[in-house]
Order: sequence, then structure tokens, then C-alpha cells
Amino acid sequence: MKIAVYPGSFDPITKGHLDIIERGAKIFDKLIVAVLVNVDKNGLFDYAERVNLIKKATMYLDNVEVECFRGLLVDFMKEKHSNVILKGLRAMSDFEYEFQMALMNKNLNSEIETFFMMTNAEYSFLSSSAVKQVAKFGGCIDGLVPESIKSIVVEKIQEGDVKHV
Amino acid sequence: MKIAVYPGSFDPITKGHLDIIERGAKIFDKLIVAVLVNVDKNGLFDYAERVNLIKKATMYLDNVEVECFRGLLVDFMKEKHSNVILKGLRAMSDFEYEFQMALMNKNLNSEIETFFMMTNAEYSFLSSSAVKQVAKFGGCIDGLVPESIKSIVVEKIQEGDVKHV
Amino acid sequence: MKIAVYPGSFDPITKGHLDIIERGAKIFDKLIVAVLVNVDKNGLFDYAERVNLIKKATMYLDNVEVECFRGLLVDFMKEKHSNVILKGLRAMSDFEYEFQMALMNKNLNSEIETFFMMTNAEYSFLSSSAVKQVAKFGGCIDGLVPESIKSIVVEKIQEGDVKHV
Amino acid sequence: MKIAVYPGSFDPITKGHLDIIERGAKIFDKLIVAVLVNVDKNGLFDYAERVNLIKKATMYLDNVEVECFRGLLVDFMKEKHSNVILKGLRAMSDFEYEFQMALMNKNLNSEIETFFMMTNAEYSFLSSSAVKQVAKFGGCIDGLVPESIKSIVVEKIQEGDVKHV
Amino acid sequence: MKIAVYPGSFDPITKGHLDIIERGAKIFDKLIVAVLVNVDKNGLFDYAERVNLIKKATMYLDNVEVECFRGLLVDFMKEKHSNVILKGLRAMSDFEYEFQMALMNKNLNSEIETFFMMTNAEYSFLSSSAVKQVAKFGGCIDGLVPESIKSIVVEKIQEGDVKHV
Amino acid sequence: MKIAVYPGSFDPITKGHLDIIERGAKIFDKLIVAVLVNVDKNGLFDYAERVNLIKKATMYLDNVEVECFRGLLVDFMKEKHSNVILKGLRAMSDFEYEFQMALMNKNLNSEIETFFMMTNAEYSFLSSSAVKQVAKFGGCIDGLVPESIKSIVVEKIQEGDVKHV
Repeated sequence: MKIAVYPGSFDPITKGHLDIIERGAKIFDKLIVAVLVNVDKNGLFDYAERVNLIKKATMYLDNVEVECFRGLLVDFMKEKHSNVILKGLRAMSDFEYEFQMALMNKNLNSEIETFFMMTNAEYSFLSSSAVKQVAKFGGCIDGLVPESIKSIVVEKIQEGDVKHV
Repeated sequence: MKIAVYPGSFDPITKGHLDIIERGAKIFDKLIVAVLVNVDKNGLFDYAERVNLIKKATMYLDNVEVECFRGLLVDFMKEKHSNVILKGLRAMSDFEYEFQMALMNKNLNSEIETFFMMTNAEYSFLSSSAVKQVAKFGGCIDGLVPESIKSIVVEKIQEGDVKHV
Repeated sequence: MKIAVYPGSFDPITKGHLDIIERGAKIFDKLIVAVLVNVDKNGLFDYAERVNLIKKATMYLDNVEVECFRGLLVDFMKEKHSNVILKGLRAMSDFEYEFQMALMNKNLNSEIETFFMMTNAEYSFLSSSAVKQVAKFGGCIDGLVPESIKSIVVEKIQEGDVKHV
Repeated sequence: MKIAVYPGSFDPITKGHLDIIERGAKIFDKLIVAVLVNVDKNGLFDYAERVNLIKKATMYLDNVEVECFRGLLVDFMKEKHSNVILKGLRAMSDFEYEFQMALMNKNLNSEIETFFMMTNAEYSFLSSSAVKQVAKFGGCIDGLVPESIKSIVVEKIQEGDVKHV
Repeated sequence: MKIAVYPGSFDPITKGHLDIIERGAKIFDKLIVAVLVNVDKNGLFDYAERVNLIKKATMYLDNVEVECFRGLLVDFMKEKHSNVILKGLRAMSDFEYEFQMALMNKNLNSEIETFFMMTNAEYSFLSSSAVKQVAKFGGCIDGLVPESIKSIVVEKIQEGDVKHV
Repeated sequence: MKIAVYPGSFDPITKGHLDIIERGAKIFDKLIVAVLVNVDKNGLFDYAERVNLIKKATMYLDNVEVECFRGLLVDFMKEKHSNVILKGLRAMSDFEYEFQMALMNKNLNSEIETFFMMTNAEYSFLSSSAVKQVAKFGGCIDGLVPESIKSIVVEKIQEGDVKHV
């Protein structure tokens, strides 16, 4: 069974993330969406909330699991018996950073491969930060986040809970 | 009447910004320089000061106006009856970010177009941050900021007011 | 009256080109699509054909004109009383080349400005070469070229007239 | 069974290609190395030779097959019951071109996914062209091509058969 | 005597830095490794510690000196009678920033030249931040930092002293 | 004595090349401008002419020599007792290609270092091809090539000798 891990912050999940999840889930037997816990950085949603939003948005995908992890990704992958990291690339700026991460992870564990997928062109401008910035100023986020979680995101942001955009 | 909006932080305006303003003002009937108010980020100059520096530096350009705005750029543009955003590109690193902003703004309002101009080669290394860093350590900023505001920038920085460089 | 010139090879015009033409025609009073004659390079369509295809595809746009030019773009622009070059950027690889062209043109005539627009994300992968390559092998070019010229392109390529793909 | 296709010119196969093949063969059940026949471009090796060199170099990999194809990659993939394209990225210049190819292929067949792997850092400068150029002038190609095919490549080039470097 | 200056944060020195130092020391008569004091940014190691780690790691290189500096690099260089800045480039993201710094330094003092060397491919993914992140979570940093300072780095990080990663 | 080699096609030398030569000649004891003979590519000027143009343009620089070479650059450098390659970078597109060349050369001879200098911003758009294209259509090349060779370049191009632009 081929298990892939799709790591990220997902604060919150966007339609661009969902696109990668859907496409990855078609190729691999199981896809684990892994929310990276970064204690140095506050977000809009706490980790439990982020996991719940992803679960809600991916409910129709049978072979997708959602988890949190802290520490090194390579350790999490070992624990999950996976040797494939899945990442989405939107543009060239993503590329360089991800290139370095992929090489570093390969250096830490040579069995692990990172596979990159190009984000669908229509989401190439989309990021969690952009979603939060638009929502914060009352802009419409239709088509930017999965329909099933839209109202939760809008509500959260209007609560004035934005700490880091 | 074609009205273009040139948004930015302008903390402070540099010769690179002025170059774009001069060239944009020749093409459009009116050019509004729009200082983005970002409550999450302190600058060297407060917003009123930034506006005044730009006004001082562009005094000889009849069809240039200077204003502050907060919130979404697309909302400000509607209010100003403008559908053209003007941006300067210095280099490829600018490009990706601006590309994403342009697509996001088009997504928020499909009537709005972003036009990019290449910054004059001699200013390709120039940014407000660079100006502040040079001035902070007593370097010469001749040719980096408009002549008319040079002494004000030097003075401000020597006051020890630098918060964020 | 603001006249902009949109130069290119257009061998043949794609939906990506048409997107830029439509958007540019909304901003400027007149938009001249200028087919560059390059004697060193054969194409699929000859210059008269390229002009006709563009005319066919832009028939519904009142302020769009189509012409050929040879020699320096800056000379053509003078003749047309235009000081605005319009270019579409699909991606970063376009950017560097266009950056150098824009600086060179500014060097040749400092009154001329090049304005860049981002190609719509859904056309970011699209080029005349790609269209020809797909058509050559019998792939479907729906959505890649303007509907009104699709059959002409397919026919031409099936004639076996492809010289340079 | 997950079948991936790794397309390219392979004129000739380099150690960088072999690195991608080895790593891809660990993840997928079958990996088909697909030599693209491009009638517009002569190479050093003809297609049968290229296939043989790859076969020789990958003899120890049980789940790797080598084939030629002409026409559209998406058609070849359908025939092979594969929906995964595997590509190696060496650097950013690869990225843009491959990005456009991936989007084009997705446009031609939305079921097909392109997965990118980063070429091992030690091969980041390596290309078939570079190998041929070095060999042509009598430079040492140890470590640039698979050991098992080295003498064949050197011999071929010294025959004076280089048409296109 | 040709004296070059190699400026950076070095928090801590990595094998990638050491690679540049070794190669630069072969070309220039003297190489001064210059640790930039940035009062706005805390690091893992204080400046005296950073200098000591570099000294320890470069002990076998006779013509290498290590110093701290604050203020403008061009002023430090004047004081040291050097007109050559040496910088390592890992990848394109480094390039743009360094390009702007080189032009700015040339603007401040036209006698000063910046020379760039490509970081060895095997260190292209390596940065001080990456080292700290790996060490923080108990990953192995063999081959990432000079052997002679490895235990000091591991110890420091396990003390829980990481302020900024 | 530190000898650096500055390789290129120089068909013809531009002001951008001259800028690198002048600056390099200040840092190294001797700078050899090395014209690469590429038998697969015709140029505007033959190799003897290119060498003469460079000699004419650098006459005032005592420590600059000009030579042709064919074959591998690393072999030429050995013969000249040089271990420093000097290259100018105009922009990011140069960077990737040069990065790969530098790594390849290091692979062929680990004693050889490539040093990159940023081309002066005012020449960032300049290339031999651009010069030829401008001159071919009667555009003014003042400031694009060294003053001392301008009339020779214009004359040559007007003779109709342009083979490859």
C-alpha cells in the first residue's frame, strides 16, 4: 500500500490545497494530510480547528486522513510507514524553498521522496494568508476556500481573532 | 478620463517610486498615489508624513494626487472610479508576489487591470528599506530619494526613530 | 487619444493573446495588434494569414486594429503616434526577456513605455507553439484558440504545412 | 498496479536520468521510460540506440521498461494504462517549461497527473548536451553517464557523429 | 596584497560557508570572514560565540581572519583596505537579494566589487536556519556543520537556547 | 600572479562586456579575454575580427590580453596557468545557465573557481544580439558598444553581412 503525506500549515485549508488532496488521493492508496505544529508561530485557527476544517472539507474522500505532527517530518513519516511526501507548487517562489526542503529531507532520510504537483492554474494566486486578508476586510472568499467551511472561516475572522495574517 | 492608482507603503518614497510616478503620469489622465495603511506594521514615517513626503516630491506633477487607504485595494479603486492599478517591477522577486496580487485583485473584481512597468535600471536595487539602512549608518542617500525630501529623511532617521528597517 | 500597440508573432493568435487584446482594448482608446515580420524565421501562417486570423478573432472589438510591421518597434510606434507598448506575461521566463526588451526600447526612445499585463491564469500554459504541437498530433485545440478560427488552424496544420513548430 | 511514465529525449541517458529512474522505480509498481521521437530534431544517437543505452543502464531494475513514442504523450499514456507522468527538475529553468507542459497535458486529459522529483544535487548541472560537449573535446565523462554505457558514448562521439550538440 | 571580505550572519557557520571560505582563501591573499552585527535580530549564538566557532572551523586555513562588524559593509571594507566582497550563491532566491546588495554597495563606493561563487551543489539546500531546525528536533547534523564544531552546536540547541530559528 | 580568464562569444564586444573587463582588470593581475570558437555557429564577425575589436576597445587597459580558444575552457585555463573564470551576470536567466557551467567546470577541474560579477545596472538589457538587431534596422547604438568600435560595427552590419542575429 502506497501512503503519501501532504504536509502544511493549512491555516485554513484553501481550494488550492483541496485540489492537491483530491488529485493525490487518486494516485496513492492513502493520503495523510499532516498539519505541522509550529510553536513559534500563532495562527488564526488552532491545530484542532485546522484538522477539523480539513476533515470537513475532505469528508467525501475515503482514503484521506488528517493528523497533526510536531518535530521533523521524516520522523512522522517513519511512524506512518510512508516514504512519499506530496507538495503543491504554485509558482517559482514556492519552488526554491521546496527544493531546499526536499533535499534536506532526502539528506535526513534517503528513502524518502518528495513528489511535487503543480497547483491548478486557477488557484495559482491563492494562499491561506490571502484568504485571511480578503476576509478580514469583508471581501468575498467564494471560490477561495472549500464551500463547506466558508462560513466558519468568515465567522472566525469577523470575531476579530486574526492574530497573524 | 483614465485614472490609475499606484499603491504601496512609501516609507519613504524613493527615486525608484518617483520614476514610476512620473512615467505613469504621462500616460494616464490622473494618477493617484495610494499609501496602504497596514495596522500590523509600524514604519519609520507615520501615514500623514508619508503622504506629505510624496506630495512634496511630486509637487511639479499636476495630475498626481496622494491619498491613504485601508482595507481592500479594489474597494478603494471603486470609490475613486479607477480600474487601472499601476505597479513597478524591479526584479523577478517582485514579479511573483505582484503576479499573485494581480490575479487576486482580478478575482475580486474582474473589471480591474494591473499594469506593470519596469523600474528604470538605475533604480533596480533601490527600496525604502535599503534607504533606511544606508541612512541609519550614516551612508549617503544622494540619488536614492528625491532631492526635495532628502534632509527630512536623514533627520528623521538620526532622531533615532527607526522602528522597523 | 491613448493608442497602445500590442506586438507579437501571433502564429497563430491564441486565446491567451485574445484575453490580453480584450482587456487592453477596455483601457486604451485604440489598440493596434502589430504582427512582427521576422525574415529569418518561417512560420506556419504567412503574415497576411496571421493578420486575417487576428482580424477574424477580434471582429467584435471596435477599437482594435491589426497591422504588420518590420524593423524596430519604436519606429513603428512613432509612425502610429503611440507611446504605449502592451505585453502579456505568462510566467517568469517571459519576464526576463520582456524586461530586457522594455529597457532596450526605452533606451531607443525614452518617451515609450511598456505596460505588462498578467495573462489570465487559465492561459498561463498556452503558446502558439503549443497549439501547433497539439494540433499536429491530432489533439483537441478547443479552448486554446479563438472559436472563430479553430477550423482554419486545424485545416492548415493537417495540410502538412507545418514548417516550424 | 500504479504505472508511471518518465518521458524525455535521453540522447544519451545521464546519471541524472538514472537517479530519477531508480527513485521512481521504488515508488511505482512499473516505470516506463519513454523516448520521445521528434522528427524535427536529429540527435547523436538514433532512437533504437537510445532505447538500448537506457536498457543497458537500467538492466538491474526489474520494474523498468523502455519504449519509444511519437505523437502526444497523453495518447501514449492511455495506451499504457498509466495516469502518472514522472519528471525530474534540476533547476528553475526546467521548472517553467515543465509547468507549462504539465498544465497542457492536464488540459488534454484531466485524469493525468505530472509528478516532479528534484534531481539529486550532485547532478543538478548535468544534461545530455553537456555530456556530449565534454566528450566531444576529449573531457572525462566519468560520473556523468552510467558506467555501463560510458565507452559506447565516448566511441560514438569520437566517430565524429555529433550532429546536434 | 588582495584582501577579500566574506560577510554574513554565520549563526552558526555551516559546511556550505566553510566551502566558500576554503575556495576563496585559495584565490585571495587574505580572506576576512566578517560577522555582521544586527542589533534588531537575536540569534542562537552571540557574536563572540559565532566568531569563535568560525575560528575553530577554519583553524587550518592560514590566511583566514574572523571579525565582527556593525554599520555599513563598505565602511568596514575601507578600514580593512579591501575592495572585494565575496558571497556564496546557493540558488536563485539568493541571487536577487545579493544582486540588489551588490548594486547598492557599488553605489555607496564604486571601487568595491562583489564576487559571487556558486555554493557546491551538495550544500545547495543548506542554511544556518535549516541546521538549527534539524538539531532542535533531534535530527542528525553530521555533514551539515564543520565536524570540529558539531558537538558545540548540538549542545547549545539542546540547552533550549533557541530564540530565533 | 593572479590571472583570470573572461570567456565569451563577443560578437561584438558591448559596453556591458567592457564594464566587466575594466572592473575585473582592477582586481586581478592579468585578465585574459577569451573568445570561444564555436564551429557550429556562424557570427557577424569572424574570430580575428572579434579579437581585434576587443583589443581596440581595451587598448587603455595594460593588464588585459585577448585570445581565441577552442575546446574545453578548463584546458585553455591550464595552458594559461589561470584558475579563475570571470563571468558577468545580467539577470536571472544568465544565472541558471552560468550556474550549470560553473558546476560542470568545477567537476572537470576542481581547482578552478568561477567568480561572477553583476553587470552594471545600466547595461542589464544589453547583449551582442540586441546590438546587432538595433543596428540592422538603423537604430542608434551609441552607448551600447565601446565608442572606439562603433563605426566598425555599424559598417559591418550595413554591408549586409549579418548571418545570425
